[in-house]
Amino acid sequence: MKILIDAFGCDDQDSFIRGIADAINEIEGVNLAVSGSREYIEKVLSGVKFDRSRLEFIDAPDVITNDDEPVMSIRKKKQSSLVAGYEALRDRDDIPIMITAGNSGAVIAGAILILGREDRLDRPTLVTFFPNDKGGQTCLADCGANVDCRPEHLVKFAEYASDYMNRVHGIEKPRVALLSVGTEDKKGNTQTKEAFALLRESELNFVGNMEARTALSGDFDVIVADGFNGNILLKSIEGTFMSVTRRLVSCLMKNIPEGTDPSFIKKSVEELRHSLDFNTQGGAVLLGVKKPIVKAHGSAVAETVVNTVKQALKIVR
Amino acid sequence: MKILIDAFGCDDQDSFIRGIADAINEIEGVNLAVSGSREYIEKVLSGVKFDRSRLEFIDAPDVITNDDEPVMSIRKKKQSSLVAGYEALRDRDDIPIMITAGNSGAVIAGAILILGREDRLDRPTLVTFFPNDKGGQTCLADCGANVDCRPEHLVKFAEYASDYMNRVHGIEKPRVALLSVGTEDKKGNTQTKEAFALLRESELNFVGNMEARTALSGDFDVIVADGFNGNILLKSIEGTFMSVTRRLVSCLMKNIPEGTDPSFIKKSVEELRHSLDFNTQGGAVLLGVKKPIVKAHGSAVAETVVNTVKQALKIVR
Repeated sequence: MKILIDAFGCDDQDSFIRGIADAINEIEGVNLAVSGSREYIEKVLSGVKFDRSRLEFIDAPDVITNDDEPVMSIRKKKQSSLVAGYEALRDRDDIPIMITAGNSGAVIAGAILILGREDRLDRPTLVTFFPNDKGGQTCLADCGANVDCRPEHLVKFAEYASDYMNRVHGIEKPRVALLSVGTEDKKGNTQTKEAFALLRESELNFVGNMEARTALSGDFDVIVADGFNGNILLKSIEGTFMSVTRRLVSCLMKNIPEGTDPSFIKKSVEELRHSLDFNTQGGAVLLGVKKPIVKAHGSAVAETVVNTVKQALKIVR
Repeated sequence: MKILIDAFGCDDQDSFIRGIADAINEIEGVNLAVSGSREYIEKVLSGVKFDRSRLEFIDAPDVITNDDEPVMSIRKKKQSSLVAGYEALRDRDDIPIMITAGNSGAVIAGAILILGREDRLDRPTLVTFFPNDKGGQTCLADCGANVDCRPEHLVKFAEYASDYMNRVHGIEKPRVALLSVGTEDKKGNTQTKEAFALLRESELNFVGNMEARTALSGDFDVIVADGFNGNILLKSIEGTFMSVTRRLVSCLMKNIPEGTDPSFIKKSVEELRHSLDFNTQGGAVLLGVKKPIVKAHGSAVAETVVNTVKQALKIVR
């Protein structure tokens, strides 16, 4: 069994590739297949010590960049690392999952066009995870793959995410909440009011509407939203974290008693950042296609690769 | 000229009413009219020192609560503080503005049904303000009044908010950005893509799409969104602030050098909270109706009243 990594399309290409060797060194027994320019990868890894017998190359010299139009690039760039990766994932029984940090739109288009949906009638959903206030993980579905949704799509996202939290995180009956503008049953817009009724009728452990205010509380295992609202929630949490941290540090530096070594402030911020950072926590996961895809952030670095390989192994198991 | 205050419908009724006397004591020369049960208000303020000649009562014994259905309560509760307030605001030339902390839905319904829209064809918008990273204020329109919008509504919200930032905050050409899932022109859902095209054609200083990540950056004067998305943005900023602050304080307390007095941490958090708190910063503003309404949070306290009266005076001037 091999974890497949699409090695191209992220911001810091060389660091990402070095992460492949790190993963082999740090994770006992893992076997990787990597798609992309073999020449480029071997150049970056020349002189790096790792067990080369645990790395297979799927040579594909071309790259889909962030400027490429998703569907067109999947159709035209047959020699790209992403298309070659998807073809291997589709065709090979020994590869159950792929990791990529490439163009999000192309990742989703490739999943649909090459790999295929789990159910022809449904849409795949991109889910992500927040480390919540109770020390667990909360799954947000959808976090940006589907910006225009019908109410029944939200129910399907909730089903995929609930199944994932059950099978990967071992939560027996994941609590599913619907992102809305108030907690009362009647709050929401036309879309969420209809989704609310469908979720109530479903087999899911649906606990009702929730507000963005409590997204990090840990009171829910799955937050369901359309990809537009989910993306706003995700990005405002990221942005507010950065802003609040900066502002609080500036207040602390102003108020710190004279003579106190301020280095513990920086250390504390780093600890907090580490616990919330996408690069250290792994990636989003595309569900609802024939095999799952771990989608790392475009800013992925070596550490991200190690963590997403661990995450992929957990998902496969 | 008098500032009108609807004194009922918030969580901490007595604190809110004491704020009326505080406002008269703290704001030189201000004259207030207050709608609500005169008996109840006089009881709460008995023994409180303030210049009673600067307070006029509009006696209205009934209250619209948060459990009341907005439109029905405006139609049926004719003796409520909110309806009496709106009638005075509509009928009296010496009252240019009203402050309320009541049921949001009823506040909006009353504005439309009693006071009347600025333009019969448009919807009023509820706008709120973030203290941004550059030390200024960013206006979010709409923050929850309109959960189902057509693209042209967003343009109107942007016009009202831009005009407000120009006239009240003195910003010559307010920079207007559209809340979306990416900064590129083509990013968004069906609604925002259409709104983008309309905003580009408008007379506004439209600077393009923005992501929730940069909501607090101060790179924009107006963020335009439908009320559902705007509400998610607003509440996730509030919730993330609370969560990040708690988590960072816990890291700081763990890492603080032995023997250091930790009180400066609490002090710093309080300073930050004060700079972001809705109760200290004033209220949201309902624009697009014949006279503006300052809508304070339901959790408003005495301090909120003083601050919203100052805000109302600034708006009127």
